[in-house]
Amino acid sequence: MALPSKVKLVEVGPRDGLQNEKQLVPAEVKIGLVQRLQDAGLKEIEVTSFVSPKWVPQMADNSQVMAGIERRAGVRYSVLVPNMKGLEAALPSQPDEIVVFASASETFSQKNINCSIAESIERFAPVVEAARARGIYVRGAMSCTVGCPYEGEVSPQQVESLARQLKAIGVQHAGVADTIGVGTPLKVQRAIEATLKHYALDDVSGHFHDTYGQGVANTLAALQLGVWQFDAAVAGLGGCPYAKGATGNVATEDVVYMLHGMGIETGIDLDKLVDAGLYISQFLQRPSSSRAGTAIAKKRPEAVACG
Amino acid sequence: MALPSKVKLVEVGPRDGLQNEKQLVPAEVKIGLVQRLQDAGLKEIEVTSFVSPKWVPQMADNSQVMAGIERRAGVRYSVLVPNMKGLEAALPSQPDEIVVFASASETFSQKNINCSIAESIERFAPVVEAARARGIYVRGAMSCTVGCPYEGEVSPQQVESLARQLKAIGVQHAGVADTIGVGTPLKVQRAIEATLKHYALDDVSGHFHDTYGQGVANTLAALQLGVWQFDAAVAGLGGCPYAKGATGNVATEDVVYMLHGMGIETGIDLDKLVDAGLYISQFLQRPSSSRAGTAIAKKRPEAVACG
Repeated sequence: MALPSKVKLVEVGPRDGLQNEKQLVPAEVKIGLVQRLQDAGLKEIEVTSFVSPKWVPQMADNSQVMAGIERRAGVRYSVLVPNMKGLEAALPSQPDEIVVFASASETFSQKNINCSIAESIERFAPVVEAARARGIYVRGAMSCTVGCPYEGEVSPQQVESLARQLKAIGVQHAGVADTIGVGTPLKVQRAIEATLKHYALDDVSGHFHDTYGQGVANTLAALQLGVWQFDAAVAGLGGCPYAKGATGNVATEDVVYMLHGMGIETGIDLDKLVDAGLYISQFLQRPSSSRAGTAIAKKRPEAVACG
Repeated sequence: MALPSKVKLVEVGPRDGLQNEKQLVPAEVKIGLVQRLQDAGLKEIEVTSFVSPKWVPQMADNSQVMAGIERRAGVRYSVLVPNMKGLEAALPSQPDEIVVFASASETFSQKNINCSIAESIERFAPVVEAARARGIYVRGAMSCTVGCPYEGEVSPQQVESLARQLKAIGVQHAGVADTIGVGTPLKVQRAIEATLKHYALDDVSGHFHDTYGQGVANTLAALQLGVWQFDAAVAGLGGCPYAKGATGNVATEDVVYMLHGMGIETGIDLDKLVDAGLYISQFLQRPSSSRAGTAIAKKRPEAVACG
């Protein structure tokens, strides 16, 4: 399989990243982050989630953030919704896409959202229908496709089963997520191949966490199957609730660095992306988790001047 | 090309790693590090260098460290030497292997060791001869094979030329090094392919730095060409003198995590390797640069108890 010549990156830092940060980030900083991300050339941004603030207080300002961002032609803005109530809350914000989610691991489903995989699919069916009836594109995030904090290994059969169920209720896109970052290249390829039994290559993306330092290598492994859409978070935002202090999503900067080095187009200005990472890292008062972002920032003349 | 079923890792943390650390590390700590690395199952360790202490004060204790380590059957101990004087200084320590080095970039050669590539090869020729006459295996480290801090891109032709010259003077092994960590998978593969024009697959290794977060992905790319020997440094030791504050060598823990996850044998106990990384990181009083090492340490019961 030839490598893709172009890749589309979906920036999930404002949602998947900040959701897992301990510090509450004010809406104006989130809006500033989205602004910088689209300045850098990101064409799709997962902005927030419409989950109960009791569960996810970090996203309680969802409507405010959606109202505050300057929406640009050619950029798509998505939000995560857990159920019909979430969709109803999200609709006034006019997202271009919604993200629904289900786990490939039965135990994770039970522990994370307190219902079985089948029940979660059943719950999402009317949400998908309602969103599509309004012309909103529906992405499905399949969590724990290569490993689960409770079950350990997750089989390609479990992934295929989940992909089949999501397809059956009308979910248009399948994101193959390594939620806890335990995946390695061959396991990630098996999970993607299982997904490709029910979704076309153009409707599949990879979503990798860098907990064990595998995010960039897993992206390469997915590219080698022809996958050309990936989620990533600027500055590697987002911790891992199952390994406190460990790294979050694969850093957008590191993925862009690899892609550009391989001659693959992204439409992203890496230098401006580094600026977006510095902006949020400075707010969070901690170093960026992106290695490319750190190296590029350290080589800047002003960084050298500062010692 | 089928992936290798076994990989040999050469631990370069005590030399390439600590050489680039600002803090001077006492000999006893280096000896303790080597002890822990061999406890973890490493079968080859680059222990120190016999370079003038004026240039590299961090390695001034080279003979003391070599005398202090407990040498085990089945483990090979190598040292880096810059010239005949270095070899002579190294001989009483009885290294199993020496490492000589030359750059694929003419400008880097001039700036780093103040002579042309051809002059450096000429200088090493008698060193190689003398070492081999004593039954000491000679490894060649080819620096800047994918990028140079002065020249930028380095072509496969430059790499091939260097490999040819090293082969001509009797260097037995070629290490393809991305000294400044700027490489990405396809560029790394081109540099390895250029080297394979003069060296057999079994005599080639990869040496990647993680400055831009590409070390693990580059390892995967090299594996896909059949390369089964890699340098790595526990805890990702070693900064990058061309981007202060950036990361050093690819972390041995991250590479082992990937290999084991792909079903590739290394003979290394990852948990003990993490211990070795914690030992040196605690001495240096800074977090490990290994993501796998950090995640594994954070999941340990004692880490959870500490909050």
